[in-house]
Amino acid sequence: MEYHHILKEHHDRIKPFIHNTPVLRSSLLDSLAGAKIHFKCENFQKMGAFKIRGAVNAVLALSEDQRAKGIVTHSSGNMAQAVSLAARILGIKAYIVMPENAPQVKKDAVADYGGEIHISGNHIKDRELMAETLIEKHGCSFIHPSNDLNVILGQGTAAKELLEDYGDLDFILTPVGGGGLLAGTALSAHHFSENCKVIAGEPMTVDDAYRSFHSGKIEFNESSNTIADGLRTHLGDINFPIIQKHVHDIIRVEEAEIVQAMRLIWERMKIIIEPSCVVPFAAVLKQKEKFKNKNIGIILSGGNVDLSKLPF
Amino acid sequence: MEYHHILKEHHDRIKPFIHNTPVLRSSLLDSLAGAKIHFKCENFQKMGAFKIRGAVNAVLALSEDQRAKGIVTHSSGNMAQAVSLAARILGIKAYIVMPENAPQVKKDAVADYGGEIHISGNHIKDRELMAETLIEKHGCSFIHPSNDLNVILGQGTAAKELLEDYGDLDFILTPVGGGGLLAGTALSAHHFSENCKVIAGEPMTVDDAYRSFHSGKIEFNESSNTIADGLRTHLGDINFPIIQKHVHDIIRVEEAEIVQAMRLIWERMKIIIEPSCVVPFAAVLKQKEKFKNKNIGIILSGGNVDLSKLPF
Repeated sequence: MEYHHILKEHHDRIKPFIHNTPVLRSSLLDSLAGAKIHFKCENFQKMGAFKIRGAVNAVLALSEDQRAKGIVTHSSGNMAQAVSLAARILGIKAYIVMPENAPQVKKDAVADYGGEIHISGNHIKDRELMAETLIEKHGCSFIHPSNDLNVILGQGTAAKELLEDYGDLDFILTPVGGGGLLAGTALSAHHFSENCKVIAGEPMTVDDAYRSFHSGKIEFNESSNTIADGLRTHLGDINFPIIQKHVHDIIRVEEAEIVQAMRLIWERMKIIIEPSCVVPFAAVLKQKEKFKNKNIGIILSGGNVDLSKLPF
Repeated sequence: MEYHHILKEHHDRIKPFIHNTPVLRSSLLDSLAGAKIHFKCENFQKMGAFKIRGAVNAVLALSEDQRAKGIVTHSSGNMAQAVSLAARILGIKAYIVMPENAPQVKKDAVADYGGEIHISGNHIKDRELMAETLIEKHGCSFIHPSNDLNVILGQGTAAKELLEDYGDLDFILTPVGGGGLLAGTALSAHHFSENCKVIAGEPMTVDDAYRSFHSGKIEFNESSNTIADGLRTHLGDINFPIIQKHVHDIIRVEEAEIVQAMRLIWERMKIIIEPSCVVPFAAVLKQKEKFKNKNIGIILSGGNVDLSKLPF
């Protein structure tokens, strides 16, 4: 399928509602990595993460009739905030299913953005059931955080902007959790660059995407034990084929490597990024030979971190 | 004295060695403060603080002969790093006197920038004595962190850049510690704006500048008990007259207000700033009526913070 024109069109329609985030560089981190790294700062994006791109794009794909009935998602993380804010921006109602054990700070953020919170049990099945009940009751539209083509195309616009400013990148790296950002980035690199390869970084302890990439079928995690709390989820049937076709490699990193890379960016670049989004930079530091002297883009996916629970 | 041309000339000569730092805005913080705030991000400056401006400018004012003999300063903070880096950039030797009780992380940073560290006793007199000994031995030139006209003019270039981008500011705010940044900013505002008033923020617990401003003579602190560790020092005989003549007001804030304002900037703007540099923003939040709907510039002076010792 040819996404070139669709990506352009979707990017144009979300532009009024998102920031074209700045690209930062650091000569110190460049010399440490032995490469030229361009950090696309989605931590400066509205609500602090790239997810608002996909959420807005998904809402804009709905008919007037669908919008009038509202949208629903289940999430304990950034997508709950993104869907709430997208709904507020576009003047519609958002129902957000959150597990009981979601941190209060995240519930507060969703409420701040005007999302109507429905607390479910902690198991994924509880959340899904409650979302289905809301859909039956209100006729609202479900927006999946990562396995939805409009969400994927929306997330891909960060890489498109990066390539518009830096057309000669050899690699773009993203983290991989549910797969939406990775799939969208891979589509943008395929359609808007000559030869830019897309690589994902993934925590070793939740390496479902790495295993899926190599086995050819969607794999799952037994553990959720990583500091990169946005990357615990698994791929979906819509983003996985895109990832199989257009992603070059997935590199796994250890927890200590994530914390060390996060500290480097905080201390040297003076910006706040969340653990999930530092994983690609940790991957570059881990495989320096592969990236030596290359032009690299890294999507710093978000900056929503609980300052009371830092790993250093 | 007419500094207009001197400021221009000094700015031109340091430009190759410093960053013209970005100006960031936040619609959320604007609405919280009820004003339009332009944050001049000196936390993204080389070595993480504005001090490199003054240090480079002071070195460039030296003759070839003086440069050959090196420079010396005493400091446990950002000026030690700034003088070390300025010396390295310009290819000369730096002797840095640091008290025994300076944090190891600061000593390491100075060593990284190539400064030759000399450890003195902890009292200010010990440091001054050791600096004098080094001057006698090597004939090197002393660079005062804040009470030196070239340092003051160098620090003033941050406000000059800000006014070049945003000429219609009603106020520029800086922190005040030793007085170099405040005096330089006041000179720049006087010479490069129509009617921009300069205001300082100062911690209540070390309010020597506030008291000096009102008594007309240089006052000192009995306590050094503030989280804003860069603001414990007192004014000097070179910067104080400039401050008396060109500064509009000094606003004092409590420790809890500093921490709260710091957390707001970290959480909402996703940037890392040190406690000392958040004091002016805390002052704006404290006196909202004064700044209502005004165009404000704030010099975010630095981002060198020990991540292991955060106040939240």
